[in-house]
Amino acid sequence: MNLPTQPYKGARDFYPEDKRLQDYLFQTIRRVVASYGYEEYNAPILEPLELYKAKSGNEIVNEQTYSFTDRGGREVAIRPEMTPSVSRMVAAKRQQLAYPIRWFSIPNLWRYERPQRGRLREHWQLNVDMFGVTSVDAELELIILTDRLYKTFGADESMYQIKINHRQLIDYIFKEIFYLNETQAHSLAKLIDKKAKISQNDFIDGIDEIFTADQKKAGLTEKALGILNCRSLSDLPEQIKNIESFQQLCQVLSRCRELSIANINFDISIMRGFDYYSGLVFEVYDSHPDNNRSMMGGGRYDGLVGLFGVEPVPTVGFGLGDATLTNFLQLHNLLPQPKNPLDVYVLLPETADRKVYQVVEQLRSLGINAAIDFSGRKLKDQIKAALKHQANYALIVGPKEIANKRYTLRDLNNQSESELTIKEVSEALVAARQVNTKKAK
Amino acid sequence: MNLPTQPYKGARDFYPEDKRLQDYLFQTIRRVVASYGYEEYNAPILEPLELYKAKSGNEIVNEQTYSFTDRGGREVAIRPEMTPSVSRMVAAKRQQLAYPIRWFSIPNLWRYERPQRGRLREHWQLNVDMFGVTSVDAELELIILTDRLYKTFGADESMYQIKINHRQLIDYIFKEIFYLNETQAHSLAKLIDKKAKISQNDFIDGIDEIFTADQKKAGLTEKALGILNCRSLSDLPEQIKNIESFQQLCQVLSRCRELSIANINFDISIMRGFDYYSGLVFEVYDSHPDNNRSMMGGGRYDGLVGLFGVEPVPTVGFGLGDATLTNFLQLHNLLPQPKNPLDVYVLLPETADRKVYQVVEQLRSLGINAAIDFSGRKLKDQIKAALKHQANYALIVGPKEIANKRYTLRDLNNQSESELTIKEVSEALVAARQVNTKKAK
Repeated sequence: MNLPTQPYKGARDFYPEDKRLQDYLFQTIRRVVASYGYEEYNAPILEPLELYKAKSGNEIVNEQTYSFTDRGGREVAIRPEMTPSVSRMVAAKRQQLAYPIRWFSIPNLWRYERPQRGRLREHWQLNVDMFGVTSVDAELELIILTDRLYKTFGADESMYQIKINHRQLIDYIFKEIFYLNETQAHSLAKLIDKKAKISQNDFIDGIDEIFTADQKKAGLTEKALGILNCRSLSDLPEQIKNIESFQQLCQVLSRCRELSIANINFDISIMRGFDYYSGLVFEVYDSHPDNNRSMMGGGRYDGLVGLFGVEPVPTVGFGLGDATLTNFLQLHNLLPQPKNPLDVYVLLPETADRKVYQVVEQLRSLGINAAIDFSGRKLKDQIKAALKHQANYALIVGPKEIANKRYTLRDLNNQSESELTIKEVSEALVAARQVNTKKAK
Repeated sequence: MNLPTQPYKGARDFYPEDKRLQDYLFQTIRRVVASYGYEEYNAPILEPLELYKAKSGNEIVNEQTYSFTDRGGREVAIRPEMTPSVSRMVAAKRQQLAYPIRWFSIPNLWRYERPQRGRLREHWQLNVDMFGVTSVDAELELIILTDRLYKTFGADESMYQIKINHRQLIDYIFKEIFYLNETQAHSLAKLIDKKAKISQNDFIDGIDEIFTADQKKAGLTEKALGILNCRSLSDLPEQIKNIESFQQLCQVLSRCRELSIANINFDISIMRGFDYYSGLVFEVYDSHPDNNRSMMGGGRYDGLVGLFGVEPVPTVGFGLGDATLTNFLQLHNLLPQPKNPLDVYVLLPETADRKVYQVVEQLRSLGINAAIDFSGRKLKDQIKAALKHQANYALIVGPKEIANKRYTLRDLNNQSESELTIKEVSEALVAARQVNTKKAK
């Protein structure tokens, strides 16, 4: 019986061309987040299952984690998200760390779900978190950084929308304006969360089911529909405009506008799935009609570090998955095709000289990426292999060349050839690399 | 009840300083292997369990894999090694790929074992493989590359030993000189594998147990002891010197000597744990008296791709773990302490100006890594935080500075200050970064 060659369902093999693309994404991300002072960390892919029970939504722990009992009897899970791990790490060194902490990571995460576009069982997710800042400057910085990320990938503001909301604003509205009890509030939050996916009539029916007869008699359903259909902060009732969460939202919007970030708006339907968000929340939506959905999200969650038995630490963070990012860039024609970084493919004539190793080692010591064809094939077949490896140049290193210390460098794009010393070969290849890097930009 | 803050047993948290060190290791590796034309790939951390049953030693599958049944009833394992995954990937695209294939990966691997120095449950392992070359040029290239890796990390030849052997040579000796049957050959291979860890007397007793009375009468135990204690190829019996594996070993040794790799020797005790090696094998030993053990190993394994129902592909590869590499570099004082790549820490006076975001964004657009202190603390406390973040410079951005468009840049190493425009600040910081990079080398 033969072994299967396909990867595990919902997970991807990364052949070199796929890996180069992923590296392009991750290196671009690393450059941007480093410019904001964020430092990279990592944690094990296995964590105690209880870490997720304590905070994630129940669906994730019960139906979607890859959990099992290890050989020592411990209940463990392959991480479905990074937030519990990073909270654990901050808690462990609560006293020694320098605040504000700015950390990021690009972990692979696992969730058992039905694979579909942009949703995989294994995906990588950029996690960016700031610990130790209570003011809304933290949320603002992460929103500016998110915007900078999309722009660095070549997106313009017509391609995506940043939407913000505030958990405390919602809480205030539910309690002080709608007079909802906790169960009602929870149901209404769920309903709002799916507002964009259902019809206005279904939304009205949903509201109708949640409110009590007394509440309806008091005109609260109409009031609710009015408020929940507000499209800007200024349309909200006056009594809301004095609370802190409202003012934080205003501040974020006006600072962003001052930075020429125009595609950011208040959206009362942004709820975020996780129960642990405690303040301002935000998401980014793809504006493309074929992919009009949330691509990333984040917000303030001040309570998590405290679950590890230390003083709580104010925290703002977001997660951005590689699969949704790739879809977005593809749809908007922003994905490059990074090439093999090979500078030269070395061809050996049928009677190879033992000194070929010295020659090529010398080339490498001069900073050149060089692969040798050991096949013993005819030169023209070796050239075919060079092209298949995406090499721009081939170098012939035979006994005659070694004896004369001059080597034939062939430009595989225009077939021109030159006879050069090894030092000259390295200089020509470095120059060619710079030209190609410019072309790629 | 509080959640635990320590990582899963035998696995490591990577705080930023740990991650920077790992990045230094991996980026150095990537540079070296790219110079030999190797391209990076990756595969999912979960694979069907049967992939490991087919080829790994039994101990690994039965006692050391993290295996479980997923929610769809599939038996899966967190990869304990990368070779089955890469063989699967090559088999899946057997026809389309360009040969020779030169691939590498630095996956994290999991094995359930008792954690000890250099042996962890989660570790990262460089895997380098060449597919499609039958000649010993493939083994030779991987040995040269391995040597280049250690030298690039700053090691010299006194610090490590490369040891080579050949499975076919051993097979020949066992069958044609010792006349062993398969069971005896297997036992003797196991005995040789632990030769370095036991006394010469125990080794002799072991041999005595394996050989039959007839074999002993024929003087084979003395012959075996003589051959198995050989320290160089030239000491082996003449009849061995005509076989191909002997000649391959000679060729590798002489080519290495020509490249001034002097610390390579034939060692008949190098067996390699996995059953699938089929030709030349090699390992690298630390020469340090406190750590005299194998740090990495590899060799030829031509049969693996064929297990996936396609034509076999000749393959040579090696694995090199991050924990053993780190131990080695530490022991020989070769580990650097990479610093936070932050260029400047931005201090805000108590009455922060809303335009601070624009100013710092401008700095970032000029390529500077800048973190803002949003704490509202006194300046001297913000400077303390800057030092804790390992910043070399602090920049004061208050309302007065913003109004004058000149900012105070303070060198935190010597306390000197200058008043500069943003463009001048960026130029000063880029220049300082280059000086620091030079110092670090």
